[in-house]
Amino acid sequence: MRLATVITAARDARGGPATRAAVQSGDRFVLLAAQDLSELLGSAGWREQAAAAVAAAETAGGLPGESIPVSAARFATVLPRPAKVICCGLNYADHIAEMGRELPEYPTLFAKYADTLIGDGEVIDAAGHGARLDWEAELAVVVGAPLKNASPEEASAAIAGYTVANDISMRDWQSRTLQWFQGKAFDRTTPLGPVLVTPDECDPEAGVRVRCLVNGEEVQNGNTRTLVFTAAALLSYISTFTRLSPGDVILTGTPGGVGMGAVPPRFLHDGDVVTTEVEGIGTLTNTVRL
Amino acid sequence: MRLATVITAARDARGGPATRAAVQSGDRFVLLAAQDLSELLGSAGWREQAAAAVAAAETAGGLPGESIPVSAARFATVLPRPAKVICCGLNYADHIAEMGRELPEYPTLFAKYADTLIGDGEVIDAAGHGARLDWEAELAVVVGAPLKNASPEEASAAIAGYTVANDISMRDWQSRTLQWFQGKAFDRTTPLGPVLVTPDECDPEAGVRVRCLVNGEEVQNGNTRTLVFTAAALLSYISTFTRLSPGDVILTGTPGGVGMGAVPPRFLHDGDVVTTEVEGIGTLTNTVRL
Repeated sequence: MRLATVITAARDARGGPATRAAVQSGDRFVLLAAQDLSELLGSAGWREQAAAAVAAAETAGGLPGESIPVSAARFATVLPRPAKVICCGLNYADHIAEMGRELPEYPTLFAKYADTLIGDGEVIDAAGHGARLDWEAELAVVVGAPLKNASPEEASAAIAGYTVANDISMRDWQSRTLQWFQGKAFDRTTPLGPVLVTPDECDPEAGVRVRCLVNGEEVQNGNTRTLVFTAAALLSYISTFTRLSPGDVILTGTPGGVGMGAVPPRFLHDGDVVTTEVEGIGTLTNTVRL
Repeated sequence: MRLATVITAARDARGGPATRAAVQSGDRFVLLAAQDLSELLGSAGWREQAAAAVAAAETAGGLPGESIPVSAARFATVLPRPAKVICCGLNYADHIAEMGRELPEYPTLFAKYADTLIGDGEVIDAAGHGARLDWEAELAVVVGAPLKNASPEEASAAIAGYTVANDISMRDWQSRTLQWFQGKAFDRTTPLGPVLVTPDECDPEAGVRVRCLVNGEEVQNGNTRTLVFTAAALLSYISTFTRLSPGDVILTGTPGGVGMGAVPPRFLHDGDVVTTEVEGIGTLTNTVRL
């Protein structure tokens, strides 16, 4: 299944654009009752609910209820309110090898808050900081069931699906101290989406391509088959110290090709267009405001 | 004012102990309508509401409505659901000097989640990890109004008050990688409370003593007047990159005397009693389970 949080023509209580959880059926998104995927994944039987909507649409030979064409869909942040967003650094074996480092025994982890997240088409807003913005295209894993002290097998079974993220980083803030957090936690700078693809349709261990383009120029091109810590391994490891809940998001790290690693280092400029792509999932397009 | 989240004789919907926000009047806590201080601080006019309860109690010469004796109060986690818990490391000038380091230009920041928090009297639960647990007594600042891009003066005016925290750290996990997060994010290991004291009754810039005792032996004794980054400076700095909301908690760092710094290093054992104290606020007593 392909799930999304789509923007509808309705307005929310504060006059902003309203959203709805949706599931793809052919060339249309069927709207579900939940306002977004954070709400949908937090409700019991979300898989069955979404599958039933697809089955009903197919059986009817048309689309009962509300739907919108995929080609006309506008996407909000796919998970707008994760309680936890945990990121893994240094996780691509080919990138680690090219840097001449040893493979790590443990995942390097740090946290960000839901306030960092934006959707496809939204502005990466770092105006007024004069910050050194860099790109980090990533596969993101979304938790689909509660997890605590889970084995890798239990963790694997609890994966709701996969989506695309760009862990845009303020390199100057990140290197001000030993801890990366402040360079990773700027509100409204982490694109997430456009859709969530369930594990039956996406297998990162077999390998999917992760790319980043800046103004159309490819700057990153990695493959998840070289991940040192798989999605299930990360969820299992994290769940040993903190419980994970449906809708939580884990960013799995970025392949080689970040701007900071270029000679000389290269950073984003005001107006740059960042395209973030994971094979079989989709593409995020976001413009930088500096 | 002295505010708390107290445990009442009632049961919550899931059969657990129910809690109520409360404000101290003389030797009693007057119960407020809110379930806890996270709910109270999230409601408009919380200061006036609490002050009115105190005034009503004093005017009546007795205590209208529900109240409990301070001596009989049992405290829950003072802020049970902060959206953000942000911690500062390396912030005591005397400790930095004794380590032979330069004073930092920027605060070292990292995040933890609300799931780490426990109240006075609760067990610091790290059973089954064989982890190297260490103590970090800290002054915690609680946000009382929304903050974004705030000056230090605006940040100062938005402080709801101060409380006591112990940023119990799993040193082995903390040092597995460059990022401290995984050693700081174990669920149910960070005592917070017992009460919140408003700024008119507590002035960390003038200096309050911060102490930690293990099984009654004093292991830390610092003073907040040597903080490099004051509470207001930290809130202002953090608010440049992420919005802060009422009920968010900032841990201001720990003075010298942690177990890892001892020769040889010293860690906590199963059954150890950790006492965390900030002058003018109160004391947390928590037992370690390893």
